[in-house]
Amino acid sequence: MTAPLPSRVSGPAPNPRLAVIGAGAIGRGWAALAAAHGWAVTIFDTDVAAGDAAMVEIAARVRALVALGRAGQDVAEAGIAALQGGTSLLQVVGNADWVIESIKEDLGQKQRLFENLDSLAKHAAVISSSSSGLPMTEIGSRCRDQKRLLVVHPLNPPELIPLVEVVPGKFTAPQTVDMASSWLRSLGRIPIALQREVPGNVVGRIAAAVYRECIDLVLTGVVDVDQIDRAVSLGPSLGWAAAGPHLTYHLGAGERGLSAFLQGLLQSFEAWWGSLAQWTKLEPEQVKALTSQVEKSYGKKLDQIREARDRRLASFLKALETSRRPSEVARGK
Amino acid sequence: MTAPLPSRVSGPAPNPRLAVIGAGAIGRGWAALAAAHGWAVTIFDTDVAAGDAAMVEIAARVRALVALGRAGQDVAEAGIAALQGGTSLLQVVGNADWVIESIKEDLGQKQRLFENLDSLAKHAAVISSSSSGLPMTEIGSRCRDQKRLLVVHPLNPPELIPLVEVVPGKFTAPQTVDMASSWLRSLGRIPIALQREVPGNVVGRIAAAVYRECIDLVLTGVVDVDQIDRAVSLGPSLGWAAAGPHLTYHLGAGERGLSAFLQGLLQSFEAWWGSLAQWTKLEPEQVKALTSQVEKSYGKKLDQIREARDRRLASFLKALETSRRPSEVARGK
Repeated sequence: MTAPLPSRVSGPAPNPRLAVIGAGAIGRGWAALAAAHGWAVTIFDTDVAAGDAAMVEIAARVRALVALGRAGQDVAEAGIAALQGGTSLLQVVGNADWVIESIKEDLGQKQRLFENLDSLAKHAAVISSSSSGLPMTEIGSRCRDQKRLLVVHPLNPPELIPLVEVVPGKFTAPQTVDMASSWLRSLGRIPIALQREVPGNVVGRIAAAVYRECIDLVLTGVVDVDQIDRAVSLGPSLGWAAAGPHLTYHLGAGERGLSAFLQGLLQSFEAWWGSLAQWTKLEPEQVKALTSQVEKSYGKKLDQIREARDRRLASFLKALETSRRPSEVARGK
Repeated sequence: MTAPLPSRVSGPAPNPRLAVIGAGAIGRGWAALAAAHGWAVTIFDTDVAAGDAAMVEIAARVRALVALGRAGQDVAEAGIAALQGGTSLLQVVGNADWVIESIKEDLGQKQRLFENLDSLAKHAAVISSSSSGLPMTEIGSRCRDQKRLLVVHPLNPPELIPLVEVVPGKFTAPQTVDMASSWLRSLGRIPIALQREVPGNVVGRIAAAVYRECIDLVLTGVVDVDQIDRAVSLGPSLGWAAAGPHLTYHLGAGERGLSAFLQGLLQSFEAWWGSLAQWTKLEPEQVKALTSQVEKSYGKKLDQIREARDRRLASFLKALETSRRPSEVARGK
């Protein structure tokens, strides 16, 4: 019996070449996140002006990550230097290991784009949609090479919120989910893979449930925009950011866990479930009333407000890291 | 014309004498919060064993606040030294400036207790209920001196989550709301006053909307307990903790604000609103399935998990403080 040949010692896998299609808020965020990690990113938008503006904004967002302590300067500058604006779909997609679609949320447009990506991308590429709620089974229904397609949905801003939803379509290969999850982790993200497609995935459903109630409380005059935002921020959200909803209630009744909690409060929850807002449409005059109240509360200085928000997000991320014990870091908690 | 006499320079108002009725998780939290600020607290429970256990736990919770950097040691030790367990309702209530009711969430029991508090408390006292969703207009319906009654609802744990809902009943005097809000601010809390009573106040409604969807996603097998908790924590909650829901969407579409955001995504939200869970009851077998999945995910080491959660909460609070600019601190943001 001869000894097996030692497997060749390989270095870490090289960063994938990333192509981002669609240079709106989410596409720019993906590009900033990847460039901040030193990845070679090409971004393309059919709107040439949007593409040009994106190049400037992406570099600014990468440098903001450095300033916030979320990226190393040398790696980030290398990523900025490698950033390219594409001139055609063929040019940006042909060579990419990972193609991220982040155009507007329109099923027909996404389907047509995916047909093109399907024929232009190399066979080994992973092609993902950033859709917040459309199922890949429909987006990619007309593609031939479907095993490499999946939804990879980030939150906004993608470079600061760690959670990313990974949602395979009916035809997606498990290896595609694994590959995308591995890349996401190397970008410092925390991927959650759903077992199956549901409208809005997980995040969209939670967001829709909260937003409907927040809108309803404002439009019915119980609280104003500023109050409800502050209440959700400094109350339940802070709590859930420290421990998810199930855990929060498991911890809510001393040492006796969730069943004791539900014994005391299920009746209250059932009363509230029966009284929550049930509407499913916002009328134009409601949109107008809401928009006007939001603008009254926050004015138009969105740049400054966004900068303060991002500073808080970066501080929270740092807080999560410093409050972890070594055993928790090892478990990825 | 003689000069007016100078008004006597007064020091800061003395801390109110606080009586907490009900020594469960919330009552203990109120007592810990106030004692950590050096207030003289008396706590009473008709269950003598619960009252005795509370005395030990409250001191431990105050010292945990010191260890987490959320209270000063000297003030906290003075608060612990001043903490008293009461032997009767009359004894604890008669001398109190603020009486906090935190017994179980049962309208009949609260009404009977409030009748007693109404006759035992001194006329100038404020009497609040910690109810998460019952209206003071009903809780205090049989009281004679109703202007001093209101709901002051903290989240769990009260000593770490800053938000407190203040909900006047139909009969509550504005001065009572002002007095309670002022005391809450001196305890480092952020009070939000609702314009009127709604089932579940604001926080209960938001929590119920999120929890229903989280339960539904687990019971229908889309994600498991650990995944949905992590998704809500590291996705929307982190985002909302940095900017409430209305502001998040106002910032969600570049410089064009909420109306641009809704232009792009209202259709998605309407589809999701139409597909959210609508059930209003949990059947016993569903409670059993949920409880068993939660226990499988988190096991029974609730003490350790709670300690880690509290450490994260304290880090978030510190992060909020350090990420504020001086102008924001001045505005109380």
